[in-house]
Amino acid sequence: MPRNQGFVLASRPTGVAVADNFRFFEKDTPAIADGQVLVRHHYLSLDPYMRGRMDESKSYAASQQIDDVMIGGTVGEVVESRHPKFAVGDKVVGMGGWQTYSVSDGVGLNKVMPGIPIQAFLGPVGMPGVTAWYGLNKIIAPKPGETVLVSAATGAVGSVVGQLAKAAGARAVGIAGGAEKCRFAIDELGFDACVDHRSETFAADFKAALPNGIDGYFENVGGKCFTLASRRLNDFARVAICGLIASYEGAETSSLDDLRILLVKRAKIEGFIVSDHLPLWPQALGELAGAVATGKLKWRETVADGIQAAPAAFFGMLRGKNFGKQLVKLI
Amino acid sequence: MPRNQGFVLASRPTGVAVADNFRFFEKDTPAIADGQVLVRHHYLSLDPYMRGRMDESKSYAASQQIDDVMIGGTVGEVVESRHPKFAVGDKVVGMGGWQTYSVSDGVGLNKVMPGIPIQAFLGPVGMPGVTAWYGLNKIIAPKPGETVLVSAATGAVGSVVGQLAKAAGARAVGIAGGAEKCRFAIDELGFDACVDHRSETFAADFKAALPNGIDGYFENVGGKCFTLASRRLNDFARVAICGLIASYEGAETSSLDDLRILLVKRAKIEGFIVSDHLPLWPQALGELAGAVATGKLKWRETVADGIQAAPAAFFGMLRGKNFGKQLVKLI
Repeated sequence: MPRNQGFVLASRPTGVAVADNFRFFEKDTPAIADGQVLVRHHYLSLDPYMRGRMDESKSYAASQQIDDVMIGGTVGEVVESRHPKFAVGDKVVGMGGWQTYSVSDGVGLNKVMPGIPIQAFLGPVGMPGVTAWYGLNKIIAPKPGETVLVSAATGAVGSVVGQLAKAAGARAVGIAGGAEKCRFAIDELGFDACVDHRSETFAADFKAALPNGIDGYFENVGGKCFTLASRRLNDFARVAICGLIASYEGAETSSLDDLRILLVKRAKIEGFIVSDHLPLWPQALGELAGAVATGKLKWRETVADGIQAAPAAFFGMLRGKNFGKQLVKLI
Repeated sequence: MPRNQGFVLASRPTGVAVADNFRFFEKDTPAIADGQVLVRHHYLSLDPYMRGRMDESKSYAASQQIDDVMIGGTVGEVVESRHPKFAVGDKVVGMGGWQTYSVSDGVGLNKVMPGIPIQAFLGPVGMPGVTAWYGLNKIIAPKPGETVLVSAATGAVGSVVGQLAKAAGARAVGIAGGAEKCRFAIDELGFDACVDHRSETFAADFKAALPNGIDGYFENVGGKCFTLASRRLNDFARVAICGLIASYEGAETSSLDDLRILLVKRAKIEGFIVSDHLPLWPQALGELAGAVATGKLKWRETVADGIQAAPAAFFGMLRGKNFGKQLVKLI
């Protein structure tokens, strides 16, 4: 029987999440019952939403329970099956959690398409890609010639937002942390401009990169990014709030200091969670898979090695140390 | 030649608008040219948006120019006509401004329907009514059983919002200034509940009136009303920002202190200006006129007497001293 290694939530953070909030475990994988499969995970996805789940009922979703395996998206391979729809060797994507193996009854477990690297199903052809697709197409809905701004522009979500905005004929402007990320956004992802929020000249650079203001803003970060963006909204601007990572651990406040800007600009701010829109996932995934398979949609990943590395990689992602999609390679 | 009396904007307010910001004039009405009509005004409408126009380019519309007649909606009667579409005696609604007569080339001048009191075309069957109709139907779009909250609930806009919300099968809750206005909202307008924002128990009353939270919020006021409402939004709540009168002269800040509520609740906040949506006015006015003519849509008005009374009535309206639609009866 293979051994399963992973992390449970040991305690809830008070402010900044720390290593002690997780507890490592190792135990035998259980015998599977009829209708179940055992999946060996190749990659675990680390995503900002996990930080919200660690808190008690402050997030949109039910809290992660103490002593339960940390929630998380995984891709892997069926290694045992007593389920009619899955065979040993099937490559699958699901919510296997922070562990090297999981048992599934098939609900929420999907076979992946061949011809695309398997870890892409945790990124551009997975939840982050659909998140970008939904916020851009259903909330911002850019018109050709409009300007779309996205924060965390080289991240798993932001990189897709920028490329979809360009494909829609919009000017894509990114905000990223550091000159290297900004260069990547422009040179590899095709953004028209990208500003470094860590630069001392951030506010001036921000203004210079947006000569025609902002028609759509896809917000992953909040804090000072939101404050600056709110002051450069055009008439009828649409702001999609996807994440506010700058505020998840209290580092920065994310606020709108004067609501009058919404009135003067007839602007809209809308928060969304991609899991509310499951009926749209097949369409989104189909479009994203096509774009990845044909090389039109690019992405970058940062891969931590081994399940033991998951907590540190997660903390790094919350502080922007990752470059592109943060993964953990398991087996 | 009849004499025309009115007010021009003499100076821009610094903070609170005062009488010296207006200058009274009296002069002969001009001779009209071919294609023009002379309209004698029966009523002038006083509306919160006028305060924004007095400031320099802070509002969505072009500023009111110094020394120009103050902008304002009027209803009246054609007393001279050299325009093929208007005859002497026609009752008309237009933007005649703060004066007793105006000359018009017919653009933006519309004949009113018979069978409805003429001043209703400045209220429930005019710009305020269409404002309520647009924000409620196009942004909030209430479903039966949902809760719709509206501030300034007995005002020209709020009173229509509440009645349309009830007609849509929603629970209508108002915020108004004073017990008398709250009683009127419930007893005459049919609101399910109304809370007095001047009461010492406002916050507790507010909570008690919203046992099922808020699905739609029609904001006319801002300040503490918005702050309290933002904390009781339900999942997928829609907030229409129509006005922020509490902040127009700096009395209260209107802000959203923590954007996370939009993410957690997947809520939307959208500012709007009814003049952006002219193609919808005929449908809205048709529905509103029908509801007024059949007695289904009720309203209340406060009428100041004579053009000289306009500035004081305007200042009173900014502070909530009016009860229902604020009008000035001219001739």
